[in-house]
Amino acid sequence: MQSQTHPALALGVDVGATKILVGTVDRGGRVHRSERYAMDRNSTEAALASLRGAIAGFLADGGTDGIVGVGFGLPGLTDSATGTWVNCTNVPIPSPVPLAAEMMERYGLRAYLDNDVHAATTAEIAFGVGRSARHFIYLNVGTGIAAGVVADGRLIRGALNYAGEAGHMMVEPLGVLCTCGQRGCLEATSSGGGIIAQAKETALADPTSSLYEAATSGRLTSTLVFAAADAGDAVASGVATRALFGLCYGITSLANLLNPEIIVVGGGVFADGWLLPRLQKFVGTYALRNVRRSLRGIVPSELLVDQVGLLGAASLAWEHES
Amino acid sequence: MQSQTHPALALGVDVGATKILVGTVDRGGRVHRSERYAMDRNSTEAALASLRGAIAGFLADGGTDGIVGVGFGLPGLTDSATGTWVNCTNVPIPSPVPLAAEMMERYGLRAYLDNDVHAATTAEIAFGVGRSARHFIYLNVGTGIAAGVVADGRLIRGALNYAGEAGHMMVEPLGVLCTCGQRGCLEATSSGGGIIAQAKETALADPTSSLYEAATSGRLTSTLVFAAADAGDAVASGVATRALFGLCYGITSLANLLNPEIIVVGGGVFADGWLLPRLQKFVGTYALRNVRRSLRGIVPSELLVDQVGLLGAASLAWEHES
Repeated sequence: MQSQTHPALALGVDVGATKILVGTVDRGGRVHRSERYAMDRNSTEAALASLRGAIAGFLADGGTDGIVGVGFGLPGLTDSATGTWVNCTNVPIPSPVPLAAEMMERYGLRAYLDNDVHAATTAEIAFGVGRSARHFIYLNVGTGIAAGVVADGRLIRGALNYAGEAGHMMVEPLGVLCTCGQRGCLEATSSGGGIIAQAKETALADPTSSLYEAATSGRLTSTLVFAAADAGDAVASGVATRALFGLCYGITSLANLLNPEIIVVGGGVFADGWLLPRLQKFVGTYALRNVRRSLRGIVPSELLVDQVGLLGAASLAWEHES
Repeated sequence: MQSQTHPALALGVDVGATKILVGTVDRGGRVHRSERYAMDRNSTEAALASLRGAIAGFLADGGTDGIVGVGFGLPGLTDSATGTWVNCTNVPIPSPVPLAAEMMERYGLRAYLDNDVHAATTAEIAFGVGRSARHFIYLNVGTGIAAGVVADGRLIRGALNYAGEAGHMMVEPLGVLCTCGQRGCLEATSSGGGIIAQAKETALADPTSSLYEAATSGRLTSTLVFAAADAGDAVASGVATRALFGLCYGITSLANLLNPEIIVVGGGVFADGWLLPRLQKFVGTYALRNVRRSLRGIVPSELLVDQVGLLGAASLAWEHES
């Protein structure tokens, strides 16, 4: 019988632009307890107070008993070696924050940091597709787009720990203007944020579009756009087709470049099931023959969408404390 | 003093579509002797006879004394685990060729196989840019386009040892028809073969183009196209601009995805110096800020262009025999 008392736990801290999820996760990827907190990003002080408050609030119930280490999944750039949150575009972090040092000082716990997509990919390595594949790509298409590249079971982190910006692969010369300042990035055409922005702009100029009401009231979603496209709405068809082809080109490029065994996808834009079968068909037809031979599939992540960030954060601690 | 007699040597066999370069290379990357042989690819039998004859011819002078192992850099798909040349589109290899077993049987030498761009990248790791960088991309733009991705000092080989087909990243939706059957691949717009094919097609339709004579006589080169573009020829400008922007988009995508310290370029299309400064300027402007911060440069390979294939082949043996 497995002991029910005092299993070793990692504390995961999944930091997003609007919420912070804190929880304890065991070595097998089981979430023991988790709590959600709001992120106030009106100022640097407010954001850091949100983060410190969330951790203190969670630990107020039970303390650090049984916790072997802390993992932070953070938006933006992190420095794993120094345990520092370096910078971020979605949360006001103008100068580096030494989170690992702070956790050691306050709680006597070792802490490990990485960005959110690296954390999610680490969760896939430990608890998801990585259990059956050594070469895979994790692609997240939500508000933005990012990827984790895994070769020989190891996440590619890059020179500055910034590898994975698949949303800024360029899929359409002189295409849609991206938040990064360049035109034609995958994220601009095919992310949730990109799809909504394009649909809004086009629908507001065309009151006959079935998306017009949603556009005026700020209720557009990628699911609405895909459904309207299937119903024959011209505005929606244009946006959905452009989003689809961006991802077709982007994923085919990733597959041809990296020769993965499997591509695992996550994020809200895949949730309604519209994109995936179309992408599977395109990549299964147009990727190089030897690449298709070894690609077992493009599959949804088996990790629960509301847990993957927390599992990822915790798995950063398990990478080092196991 | 270094001994001048009997240094340990690897035998490198660099197999191309039209020639075979065989040579001995020491542990430090110095070529001791090399010979060039013709590749007859009119039939499978002729191609394999060329390869066997080249090795036998080279070893006729000196035998296998001092040779610790053999490395083969081959076009197409190889299986490193079994030492087999699996398939190829440029040389007629319809069924797998067990080259490692053959080398052991004939010469009592262990042999290691990989494809040509993996071999060249292995040479960069051992003897080139890898001496000062752990995260880099080697990009070869010659007749075709291929890349080696190095993370943490290790070459990413992929599920079927086929990683690196950067020429089949898609940079232009519905663009130029590629030899792979898809439209818009980087190789179709920006490789030497692609540049020549586009220039030929366009120039033959326009006798006023300064490229018309070269197009009719089959003397087109990428250097001619770039020079004619600089001189204001409209046909050449169109082709050169398209080639340049394909590489700008492709390299920016690679940099954003993989966050390399350095991108090292090789291959004939870079030889005249036209492309590189333009690419440096684009990527230095449009790659993501954190990516630019950590990218030390896009630089020409320091390895001699007529030696890199041989060094690469030999370095495959040094990977295992050192």
